[in-house]
Amino acid sequence: MTSNVDLNSDLGEHFGSWRMGDDAAMLEIVTSANVACGFHAGDPRSILETLRGAAAHGVSVGAHVAYPDLVGFGRRPMSLSRDELFADVVYQIGALQGLARVAGTGVGYVKPHGALYNRIAFDEAEAAVVIDAIRAVDAELALVCLAGSPLVEQAEAAGLRAVPEAFADRAYEPDGALVSRREEGAVLHDPEEVARRMLELVRTGTLTARDGSVVAVRAESVCVHGDSPAAVEMARAVRSALTVGGIDVSSVVPAGR
Amino acid sequence: MTSNVDLNSDLGEHFGSWRMGDDAAMLEIVTSANVACGFHAGDPRSILETLRGAAAHGVSVGAHVAYPDLVGFGRRPMSLSRDELFADVVYQIGALQGLARVAGTGVGYVKPHGALYNRIAFDEAEAAVVIDAIRAVDAELALVCLAGSPLVEQAEAAGLRAVPEAFADRAYEPDGALVSRREEGAVLHDPEEVARRMLELVRTGTLTARDGSVVAVRAESVCVHGDSPAAVEMARAVRSALTVGGIDVSSVVPAGR
Amino acid sequence: MTSNVDLNSDLGEHFGSWRMGDDAAMLEIVTSANVACGFHAGDPRSILETLRGAAAHGVSVGAHVAYPDLVGFGRRPMSLSRDELFADVVYQIGALQGLARVAGTGVGYVKPHGALYNRIAFDEAEAAVVIDAIRAVDAELALVCLAGSPLVEQAEAAGLRAVPEAFADRAYEPDGALVSRREEGAVLHDPEEVARRMLELVRTGTLTARDGSVVAVRAESVCVHGDSPAAVEMARAVRSALTVGGIDVSSVVPAGR
Amino acid sequence: MTSNVDLNSDLGEHFGSWRMGDDAAMLEIVTSANVACGFHAGDPRSILETLRGAAAHGVSVGAHVAYPDLVGFGRRPMSLSRDELFADVVYQIGALQGLARVAGTGVGYVKPHGALYNRIAFDEAEAAVVIDAIRAVDAELALVCLAGSPLVEQAEAAGLRAVPEAFADRAYEPDGALVSRREEGAVLHDPEEVARRMLELVRTGTLTARDGSVVAVRAESVCVHGDSPAAVEMARAVRSALTVGGIDVSSVVPAGR
Repeated sequence: MTSNVDLNSDLGEHFGSWRMGDDAAMLEIVTSANVACGFHAGDPRSILETLRGAAAHGVSVGAHVAYPDLVGFGRRPMSLSRDELFADVVYQIGALQGLARVAGTGVGYVKPHGALYNRIAFDEAEAAVVIDAIRAVDAELALVCLAGSPLVEQAEAAGLRAVPEAFADRAYEPDGALVSRREEGAVLHDPEEVARRMLELVRTGTLTARDGSVVAVRAESVCVHGDSPAAVEMARAVRSALTVGGIDVSSVVPAGR
Repeated sequence: MTSNVDLNSDLGEHFGSWRMGDDAAMLEIVTSANVACGFHAGDPRSILETLRGAAAHGVSVGAHVAYPDLVGFGRRPMSLSRDELFADVVYQIGALQGLARVAGTGVGYVKPHGALYNRIAFDEAEAAVVIDAIRAVDAELALVCLAGSPLVEQAEAAGLRAVPEAFADRAYEPDGALVSRREEGAVLHDPEEVARRMLELVRTGTLTARDGSVVAVRAESVCVHGDSPAAVEMARAVRSALTVGGIDVSSVVPAGR
Repeated sequence: MTSNVDLNSDLGEHFGSWRMGDDAAMLEIVTSANVACGFHAGDPRSILETLRGAAAHGVSVGAHVAYPDLVGFGRRPMSLSRDELFADVVYQIGALQGLARVAGTGVGYVKPHGALYNRIAFDEAEAAVVIDAIRAVDAELALVCLAGSPLVEQAEAAGLRAVPEAFADRAYEPDGALVSRREEGAVLHDPEEVARRMLELVRTGTLTARDGSVVAVRAESVCVHGDSPAAVEMARAVRSALTVGGIDVSSVVPAGR
Repeated sequence: MTSNVDLNSDLGEHFGSWRMGDDAAMLEIVTSANVACGFHAGDPRSILETLRGAAAHGVSVGAHVAYPDLVGFGRRPMSLSRDELFADVVYQIGALQGLARVAGTGVGYVKPHGALYNRIAFDEAEAAVVIDAIRAVDAELALVCLAGSPLVEQAEAAGLRAVPEAFADRAYEPDGALVSRREEGAVLHDPEEVARRMLELVRTGTLTARDGSVVAVRAESVCVHGDSPAAVEMARAVRSALTVGGIDVSSVVPAGR
């Protein structure tokens, strides 16, 4: 299938005196950084530091927009009105664009976070608000979407560049859905296995589902985590396997846009 | 002296379900709107609503940046590190730029709010951080400064367009300083008197200080309040007196920039 | 039926420089004050001021606990984990108890607010968390519940004193449910009509539903609003009609508990 | 001098998904836990978890009250009005009391945090507000104060039990003040040296200042940190040295009060 792929990770998730993840290490590995915008994580100073790192490494920057919920890290479902969600998304993108400009880079895409990510993958009305907000701020921004979800086509139909992504450390159902985190075996822990699967994904456009069947997963980007030393190691293994396998690991959206 | 002047006011200061000020009325009166950016007031939805009003009325938009203190409304002095303040200012300007773009307008200037405003008027080191932040985001942004304060020259020396402003409803000391709010007579309440003083200011570049002496006040903009029906009435009286007096009331920075 | 009733209202809903409602006027009218605890409204200083007013007027105090959402005023549905909700409820009750003690009064009951109120009226699992939290802090606290909802019996079965309440300005369905705010006629605006209905409610234990049928509503407390001059006037009309009608208007839970 | 001493540490400083410090390890070492109350750190759920640990280990609990500043971790000086600070302190103590009750323990003392701690050690007016707030909530609460500061006597004169504390890992000036963190050598890193110094402190009521002179430091409690593995190791070394040295390490305020 394709011979290139993007590696993205959630970064900029510090908050004040609290640290989360090893941004410096991850910026050596990934090609796209989903940077928190202050609603689920990230204070302006720490966000700017991460953006400067992204600029220095030529890593593309995405706005990791979220529901306004620091305590819940944006993972708790919330019901916002259309106007609230629209403006919250615009505000976060704008804030990150300002900081990115100062860091000598730019925002190239948007990747909703946590509960918002999960909801818009399948909730067309909620997704439409996010799409409208992105288009209103900058119609050139790409939208990173769950591979296989209806959101991919919805975003493209609305004129946005959709970037379907797969999750490196997650097991898949035979129909292409992620195995729910509530079920055993949902999260994969073996770096070798994960790396091998991602190479399979990029080379063949398929993944082995948990029942052993082969499922088609069309992904242009792979999400890797960096919130623990083991996660960083796994991300490194994925990158290494892809490179050794002859895959061009590069961002879908040019850095510094 | 000059035959034109800008009228500015603090707007967009709602927060969620709480209302403050009559933005709709004030947007009919002023030529520049200092719009809250979410740190002392303003949630994204209500900010966007105010920006849409500003766009509809051709009113210029300024980023009313503040210390991060909703409960204290940005009026409580705080000590931020250089990096914190720098990034906080950039974040707020960026967020407002994003919302302004969506509203069909742009941010033309920055006016720090409350405790930050008071501090940078006379604290050169703190002012330098704000100036650096503005220049890093967009060196074309003007900076509204307290008329007569050292900040005016500091901003200009740094290459920013400085807009000195006077306060319509405040009494002045013989040396051009504002009479402290802690002293009696610091705030003027008679719309007629205030309007007459502002006409004097624009025509002659002077104001009558509280001891009856005449003091030079070089101001290109006049700040009027809109947080009560009486304040709106006073703003209207000022605008009317200026117009009747033949003064061109127009924004210093073009709207929609 | 009963010859006495409690009048409750949501108070203490200021936040920093923002005002909401006329607490001073309402404390002359109601017998129970549902006081915000800082999660949907209320900063400590303004809460304390309201509590001092409640103490001076001998008005009972309830903890108006809510989801942590200032921008949404606690009205946006949120999904918290059991542990999060439990601790959030305890934290809010404790904070209000501390402030109440300083004001010379005490907290006598709990009334969940907004989205949390609506959810626990019918969601048994969510309600169980709130009930557990109340019992863990102080099993003597009463719980104000939507009259006719399953919560009334659930709370009583758990050993809490449940206080069913009716809403003065809301229309009722023939089955005793509130007419949804999304439907026309859901909110009543005529003080005379509202006052007459509340007298009917207390005297007969029934209300006239919107189709003209008579529905049984067992309520020990009536909720009146105070967030506008018209709302205060309506509250006064209700109190006056009840008093003139020979009803003893007094709190269910003793003040100062 | 004295043959017993208290060991206290700042705990409960997680916030949502962010972790800080190893509370489980520290609760095996210290006799008093200064627990964050949500203003500089700590969400209700994580605070409750720490309090349950304190209850299980028989560790005394103090309210670690702070300025409202999560991003700045309560370390940034702020100017609050008297009424604001008073109510903020009461609110935090009350919230912690509620959670402590649920955890099966109680709050025995108050230790202000960060910028507030530093300010009230020497600012009598600000200290008076904190003292008034503590007395209004519960006059039996002790106040942990910087040893040698005027606050010790001020608190005692106001009728509070003052507990002077020394800092295990800090160098002292010949006059008993802490060496400023801005100066080299302000923070001690050798667990052996620190442990030896604390044994000296408890046995003789003196410490060796950085110029080699001996300075009297009257402390009833010693503050140890637990925010890194090295800090936990140092805390263990201090506890061990004291125990081996025959000192009774026990809390000044009974646990579970």
